[in-house]
Amino acid sequence: MAVLGMDLGGTKLAYAVFTEDGTLIRKNTLSLDKRKGTEVGRLISTNISDIISSSSGEGFKIGSIGISVPGISHAGTGKVWAPNIPGWEDYPLLEEAVSVSGGIPVVIESDRACYIMGEVWQGNAKNCKDAIFLSVGTGIGAGILVNGEILRGSHDVAGSIGWMALNRPFIDDYIACGCFEYYASGAGIASNAKRMIKQGRGYNGVLKNILSENITSYEVFSAYDNGDPVASAVISQCIEFWAMAVANLISLFNPQKIIMGGGVFGPAVSLIPRIREEASRWAQPVSINQVSIEQSALAGDAGVIGAAYMALKKIII
Amino acid sequence: MAVLGMDLGGTKLAYAVFTEDGTLIRKNTLSLDKRKGTEVGRLISTNISDIISSSSGEGFKIGSIGISVPGISHAGTGKVWAPNIPGWEDYPLLEEAVSVSGGIPVVIESDRACYIMGEVWQGNAKNCKDAIFLSVGTGIGAGILVNGEILRGSHDVAGSIGWMALNRPFIDDYIACGCFEYYASGAGIASNAKRMIKQGRGYNGVLKNILSENITSYEVFSAYDNGDPVASAVISQCIEFWAMAVANLISLFNPQKIIMGGGVFGPAVSLIPRIREEASRWAQPVSINQVSIEQSALAGDAGVIGAAYMALKKIII
Repeated sequence: MAVLGMDLGGTKLAYAVFTEDGTLIRKNTLSLDKRKGTEVGRLISTNISDIISSSSGEGFKIGSIGISVPGISHAGTGKVWAPNIPGWEDYPLLEEAVSVSGGIPVVIESDRACYIMGEVWQGNAKNCKDAIFLSVGTGIGAGILVNGEILRGSHDVAGSIGWMALNRPFIDDYIACGCFEYYASGAGIASNAKRMIKQGRGYNGVLKNILSENITSYEVFSAYDNGDPVASAVISQCIEFWAMAVANLISLFNPQKIIMGGGVFGPAVSLIPRIREEASRWAQPVSINQVSIEQSALAGDAGVIGAAYMALKKIII
Repeated sequence: MAVLGMDLGGTKLAYAVFTEDGTLIRKNTLSLDKRKGTEVGRLISTNISDIISSSSGEGFKIGSIGISVPGISHAGTGKVWAPNIPGWEDYPLLEEAVSVSGGIPVVIESDRACYIMGEVWQGNAKNCKDAIFLSVGTGIGAGILVNGEILRGSHDVAGSIGWMALNRPFIDDYIACGCFEYYASGAGIASNAKRMIKQGRGYNGVLKNILSENITSYEVFSAYDNGDPVASAVISQCIEFWAMAVANLISLFNPQKIIMGGGVFGPAVSLIPRIREEASRWAQPVSINQVSIEQSALAGDAGVIGAAYMALKKIII
């Protein structure tokens, strides 16, 4: 029996078929080409149909399907909220997928849940029952595994760690995205650097020569690697916030592993030792010694692998 | 079938026998009288023996036993770490209790786990599967229920919310007890008030006339009720920290309820609306509207009721 994992992002749809033991059978990535609303749903359902109908000719049989979505999957209704897909405020993705799956079970999960499940199946959290994927990209979210199960909360919104309160007093800048995300997301890194360049007199580093709208976290990391003072100040502040958040996860969840992933980790993986050092000052002192803080082993594939593993769990348990 | 719940505190042992439907059959509270180490263990085992042997004459039969401990219960070993009981760094309480229980199953849980279970059985978290008891007394801890099960973490140390990082930069004062506890526990309230009185020139309020060693959080709350400026500053700061911690629980766990309990709630229950208002600024905006923030319904009985419920769950599931 094989499983199909699909990972919907804001701009593309990746999918992969695996055997039960995790061997990759086939994979592909498709651009969304600015599709929105039902067009995105149709792209997913068409591919499900095509993969199922081509499967027997290719010598495999799909036993279950997992779909990772960039937002919230409501387990009770099968509907999805995905802020980056226009028209997906409450999209009936499960109904659409099941309508073409011919009785093959379908499970839909948030991307952050799939990330940690991917690491459990094929990455750095193998054999873990209590582990957390801290995803730092444009935004920040956490996929949290508690005793082998995804933490969903009462309405499937758990893991919204971008909203973590870490820096008082409250300021209006936190309203749109949350305090932690404001300072320490990819978007936050870029905007903090821009703000600092604007405010700082006498700064003449490399970031000054880049058009403001072109400064992303990648330019900041590149400048940081070259000793730029603004980049250095921004990243040092990020390390403090990442460490406080990691410490809070350690004190609350007493996990075996915290996996740092997303686009920012990425360039920030070399900072993990400094994050651990700073987190050690804040965290519950027993728990900090029971946790390993590691980078993602799967990078951009965590979502599709995790979606496939959620599918597999649906049929093997 | 009846269940026996025991609640060990730093200075006393409370126990209660309930029917399966929660009706109280008998209860008692015993002073520890400065017992330590094995003496405390013997007090517990002697009482278990006595209750079991007297039970048939009193018309009930104990089906299981739950014990709440003021520290960490290691589920794998049956040993207990309880910092306020001298000699209980790694005390084999399960072995001792089982040796006198005559085959009746025994379960041992941390006090914070029992608090939330007590509220689920007989208090303000009935029918909840995702709820948190935030216990603010001398120290601070959280009993966290995830999908109907206690969150234990990899080594039973989960819920150590007193260590939550909320106020940067790190200062050495946080080393002993954690940042959140430093500012917002009962002990923190008292020491913050003392510090403010010492630093503040021109303060002539009621707290000035109390010997420093006699100032506890209760004196601070009493002064607060009378409009004292130092007490008002200390409590306002506490509200901010409690709100940030509550917001972080909401963003991470998306719970149905957060129950504010412990000795400080108590006098601080009237502040819950202000805590909610401040938490609303910080928390994930969907989750904050899905949570109810309430006081404990059980006050000092939450531990013994929760211990009895843990015992009941051991035999009915």
